[in-house]
Amino acid sequence: MDGRQGAVPIMSDFQAELAGRAKKVDARLLQYIDQGKYKKMREAMLHYPAAGGKRMRPVLAMLVADAVGGRGDAAIPFGCCLEIIHNFTLVHDDVIDQDPVRRGQPAVHIKWDIPTAIIAGDALFARAYEVLADTDVPDKDLRRLLRITSEAIFLVAEGQQMDVDFEKLPTVSLADYEEMVEKKTAVLFGCAAEGGAIIGGGSEKQVRDMKEYARLFGIAFQMWDDVLGVVGDPKKVGKPVGNDVRNGKRTLIVVHALEHLPEGKQREILRKALGNQKATDEEIKAAIQVLKDVGSIDHISSLAKKMAKEANAKLACLQDSDEKRALAALAEYSVARES
Amino acid sequence: MDGRQGAVPIMSDFQAELAGRAKKVDARLLQYIDQGKYKKMREAMLHYPAAGGKRMRPVLAMLVADAVGGRGDAAIPFGCCLEIIHNFTLVHDDVIDQDPVRRGQPAVHIKWDIPTAIIAGDALFARAYEVLADTDVPDKDLRRLLRITSEAIFLVAEGQQMDVDFEKLPTVSLADYEEMVEKKTAVLFGCAAEGGAIIGGGSEKQVRDMKEYARLFGIAFQMWDDVLGVVGDPKKVGKPVGNDVRNGKRTLIVVHALEHLPEGKQREILRKALGNQKATDEEIKAAIQVLKDVGSIDHISSLAKKMAKEANAKLACLQDSDEKRALAALAEYSVARES
Repeated sequence: MDGRQGAVPIMSDFQAELAGRAKKVDARLLQYIDQGKYKKMREAMLHYPAAGGKRMRPVLAMLVADAVGGRGDAAIPFGCCLEIIHNFTLVHDDVIDQDPVRRGQPAVHIKWDIPTAIIAGDALFARAYEVLADTDVPDKDLRRLLRITSEAIFLVAEGQQMDVDFEKLPTVSLADYEEMVEKKTAVLFGCAAEGGAIIGGGSEKQVRDMKEYARLFGIAFQMWDDVLGVVGDPKKVGKPVGNDVRNGKRTLIVVHALEHLPEGKQREILRKALGNQKATDEEIKAAIQVLKDVGSIDHISSLAKKMAKEANAKLACLQDSDEKRALAALAEYSVARES
Repeated sequence: MDGRQGAVPIMSDFQAELAGRAKKVDARLLQYIDQGKYKKMREAMLHYPAAGGKRMRPVLAMLVADAVGGRGDAAIPFGCCLEIIHNFTLVHDDVIDQDPVRRGQPAVHIKWDIPTAIIAGDALFARAYEVLADTDVPDKDLRRLLRITSEAIFLVAEGQQMDVDFEKLPTVSLADYEEMVEKKTAVLFGCAAEGGAIIGGGSEKQVRDMKEYARLFGIAFQMWDDVLGVVGDPKKVGKPVGNDVRNGKRTLIVVHALEHLPEGKQREILRKALGNQKATDEEIKAAIQVLKDVGSIDHISSLAKKMAKEANAKLACLQDSDEKRALAALAEYSVARES
């Protein structure tokens, strides 16, 4: 995390920028969702979106629309469409993973029940497209937005299926795992930036490059999450040290380690700690040491930084602007943040 | 079923017409679905659509597009979009209702598992919109199709939520139950016909009337299903007599009866048989007799016929054509069929 001290002021500028845009999105987003005759369904649909969130997808779409020379605000409905889709996937994912808690609150299927959660997810999905239909863009752009959005959601579903199936396999290759991560998270970021560039009237090159920027950013962000999960400061990350190891979460780091560790003592130490709720702090620390020794933490950490750098390079197609700088800071931040 | 004998030749003509169109839809439909990198997900997505079905929604859209003077074939992608959506709702409904069998085969969540079924449903949903994005209509019509489709799916979700919640209530009013039935089934028919009219270049009046035709047809069709469930010929319906009563299915007929039967012996007979898998044939017959005596079967049967007639009246906005005649025959058939 060299240079992070010096970068703090920039970070805080761009974070204020993001927060300002997120705030602009918030009211519209909840208004879009809080419709329909059936109160219970509305409440189940609103449960996650109303609990907060960084609104990364709408903010990305807005920043990019501005950065290519258009109007960021014009991208709000499209951004909200993606945010609603993101929330629909969270609702279904929590049912699938039997996760009882989300954003510090009971998951939808816990607060209500599984049928209500499945239906609320479907209803959010449908609502997202109603919002898209009302987007104030030329009709031909709408067709394009419809296409990229639907293709992205399909890939998200593929990623989710891979994730579910990987859980049952003894080992997964790093390449397969990276593909899953990309589909589950980066694809929707890519869609947000691509759509923002279309809405902002960007050139074809800008549309392509913005999509790639956000895709790379999304993967880097997720990789860095995995890094923080094992070496992050517990106070800043908000989770106990090695939480991911104790929960047996198969992160990119763990997948890399299992791919490279031969049978032997080190592998045994890692195996014993993974998913072992009763593991002592010593055992968790020893497992993390193994992840370090085999080079997995360094490998994923460098990969994340490399991707963030590549993401940044994609911004070359943009003229200088506050939004371009914010996008650059966002990519840098994704692999420098401590939480 | 007076007059049915005389009507048989017409029925069989229009049924051949429907079957011919359904066949045209079949190959395209499966082709649309059988895409994507992940074989298992493709198989789960294809499981219901490949098992057959009448393809009522695409056929309706095609007939209407022709009937308003356009090209029926141009409505195939939109029709397939709705058929895919219909199948997605079936996959999720079966998870929600814990139904193990669909179209004589194990349900998706049985053949695979619940996570795979939830994801396959979501993937079908996304794929449906990919198909819509490729529909060969003017861009402004695409926006309209996107809007009506998304609004319809939202209402289907509301209907499904009502259905789930009604199951837990001791009584439901006939009005609420009708609303649920309309949302769960008729709304998507309405959307198919409305979209077909848009694609066919129909007038605004035709677009409105075709939507209403199909909505009324859809409710009539569902009501007649309920009638057949209690008084249909078991050999023709393919289920034992009074199957719905034994399974405790809360049909429109049962809801009507419970709304009108005072506490007493008759109500007791019905209550005892409803959902009682061990009820004797005598007890089931006695319960059906109660449904007859309180006038519920007649009431729903007349209501179904009235709606089919109203549906037919909506066809007045069409010039005479084979397709108009097929639509008329379809409405008549919906409340005359024996299976």
